[in-house]
Amino acid sequence: MTGNTAPSQADARRTVISVDAMGGDAGPAVVVAGIAKSAKKNPDIRFLLHGPIEQLEPLVARRKHLAGRVEIRDARDVVTMEDKPSQVMRNGKGTSMWSALEAARNGDAAGVVSCGNTGALMALSMLRLRKLPGVNRPAIAILWPSRNPQGFNVMLDVGADVRADAEDLLQYALMGTSYIRNSMDLPCPRVGLLNVGTEEHKGRAELKEAYALISQNAEKANYEFVGFVEGSDIPGDIADVIVTDGFTGNVAIKTGEGTASLLRSALREAFEYSILSRLAALLAYTSLARLSKRIDPRRVNGGIFLGLNGTVVKSHGGADATGVSAAIKLAFLLAEQGFAEKLAARVASAVELAQDDATSADADEPGDSESGSTN
Amino acid sequence: MTGNTAPSQADARRTVISVDAMGGDAGPAVVVAGIAKSAKKNPDIRFLLHGPIEQLEPLVARRKHLAGRVEIRDARDVVTMEDKPSQVMRNGKGTSMWSALEAARNGDAAGVVSCGNTGALMALSMLRLRKLPGVNRPAIAILWPSRNPQGFNVMLDVGADVRADAEDLLQYALMGTSYIRNSMDLPCPRVGLLNVGTEEHKGRAELKEAYALISQNAEKANYEFVGFVEGSDIPGDIADVIVTDGFTGNVAIKTGEGTASLLRSALREAFEYSILSRLAALLAYTSLARLSKRIDPRRVNGGIFLGLNGTVVKSHGGADATGVSAAIKLAFLLAEQGFAEKLAARVASAVELAQDDATSADADEPGDSESGSTN
Repeated sequence: MTGNTAPSQADARRTVISVDAMGGDAGPAVVVAGIAKSAKKNPDIRFLLHGPIEQLEPLVARRKHLAGRVEIRDARDVVTMEDKPSQVMRNGKGTSMWSALEAARNGDAAGVVSCGNTGALMALSMLRLRKLPGVNRPAIAILWPSRNPQGFNVMLDVGADVRADAEDLLQYALMGTSYIRNSMDLPCPRVGLLNVGTEEHKGRAELKEAYALISQNAEKANYEFVGFVEGSDIPGDIADVIVTDGFTGNVAIKTGEGTASLLRSALREAFEYSILSRLAALLAYTSLARLSKRIDPRRVNGGIFLGLNGTVVKSHGGADATGVSAAIKLAFLLAEQGFAEKLAARVASAVELAQDDATSADADEPGDSESGSTN
Repeated sequence: MTGNTAPSQADARRTVISVDAMGGDAGPAVVVAGIAKSAKKNPDIRFLLHGPIEQLEPLVARRKHLAGRVEIRDARDVVTMEDKPSQVMRNGKGTSMWSALEAARNGDAAGVVSCGNTGALMALSMLRLRKLPGVNRPAIAILWPSRNPQGFNVMLDVGADVRADAEDLLQYALMGTSYIRNSMDLPCPRVGLLNVGTEEHKGRAELKEAYALISQNAEKANYEFVGFVEGSDIPGDIADVIVTDGFTGNVAIKTGEGTASLLRSALREAFEYSILSRLAALLAYTSLARLSKRIDPRRVNGGIFLGLNGTVVKSHGGADATGVSAAIKLAFLLAEQGFAEKLAARVASAVELAQDDATSADADEPGDSESGSTN
């Protein structure tokens, strides 16, 4: 996964990840445990850590793998889960979240990780890092366990914005495919547009329009469009990138997480039910551990913000050290690959394509006719 | 669950269920197997079966539990999964689905079950049975496995209509609570409105409006409004009835189903992995069977159409005999309890309430001020 860039080419800047120590449900100790876990596994990573210095210094000092690899930037305020994004944009300058983003803005860090308030993080990211030219609505993309060979699908938007028009959904397709190309070995990802049925006459008007746009751009932007997909295809194997608005995407992932969590509880109860079943659990320990790892939400912890000048990874608010470490690994990998720059180039060329299309829209280009006629 | 009505009061009509034998993925043999299963378990049930008589007669003749309990009504045409609802409304008169609904319309049956095309079934149901007075959009409600003591939550709409405004969402709350009162022992159900966060400032404009309406009607309509809930609460224990539009609800249940199905496959693989894990599966057999039963989607097979003059249950297109039997059981229970009549009364009184509210909207009633001020 790091094959694209030889380590010798990596400069110091690329390996610095800016981490907001505050705002997670479990406090800074868990965040520091997470960065220590990352530091142990990955010698190429360094950290900027943001929060109240008197809290962070002793936590860092206790971890031997962090010695000489963490610079603490003192920030007195904390964005809470209850703060409204608009308040944070006005009054958030002294917060650890703001400080973490500022480090990416001024080039001190190649990526940002926060466990804090998602809405505030997106609002501050847009304010400080700015949207990429041509992007209307940035999106949050996540990896979802799936039946595909790569083990995961990408879904976006999962909550940056509750609205998305057809143009936005096309941009999500472009950004999502760019992301999956850079995080997995998929040169021509398959894109599906989430709907309530796979038939072309179903769903809302903006989805039919998005269907046409995404279909028209498939060849030029080097993805395959598989058309409408349903909720059951999010963990399925007919698409690699699932495109939807932030309201639907957010409800979908939370429903999936909730259902998985209910099943895990039920499974645990089943194994604790009798002596025989406890013995069975013992015998099946390695198999169950493998299963548990495969469906562990912490392994895919980290929603990535797409469409900004910079790489921002939102870790789950309730993440433990393993979860924080997974989010940091994601930010590191994307930074190493110069993902933000590649995505910017991809979106810029798509904007050009769209302008070309607008100019020649009435000319009935032969290249467009096939995809156009299927809508 | 049948305690509300003494069996001695049940007349012959109430125990007749009208079943569309065609349109399911597996064909009429599975539907007949399903009604045979129901007939064996429940001596009080009789059937009207709709479809091509030459196909159905031999299938019914083979089942001894169906002897003398099934009347076949010949219908030559079948609604396929590909048919558009609008086509079926125009040309569907000769179909088994039309015939099945007609039996409820003219009073020959107390409930209808079909495994066919959902969109067509809803369209034909609205055409033949008509909406209840005061209902704008009928909804499809399902039971979802949950952490609640009753084991299930009700969610609606899961796909009758991709749109829903604030008034519709209030009606869904009224219909959903009426349904759960009649299918489970919950005198004062808790209602949650699905959103991307539980904070009141989040989400779309129509949701904030619906929040106010549902909150204002809680006391009069005898439910508790717990406010906004998230996707993770659909299988959770903070609400009994989850209200949302048909687009979001449909995506959510399919995502949940897909995720559960992926987990079941992964679990199966884990147990087949080694000799030890196979032995473990053997030892844990009864516990796993119990778990499997608890999360078996076939047990809660059956989306119920709410807001019509009559009881229509949509069984999953891919349902097997167990699934069909579960859908029939649901239709039977609701018919026994006179649910359609109770729901009609509930909606009618809510319409009156709404008219009262509209008249006194500017009067700032003390009774409304508390709930109004929380929005």
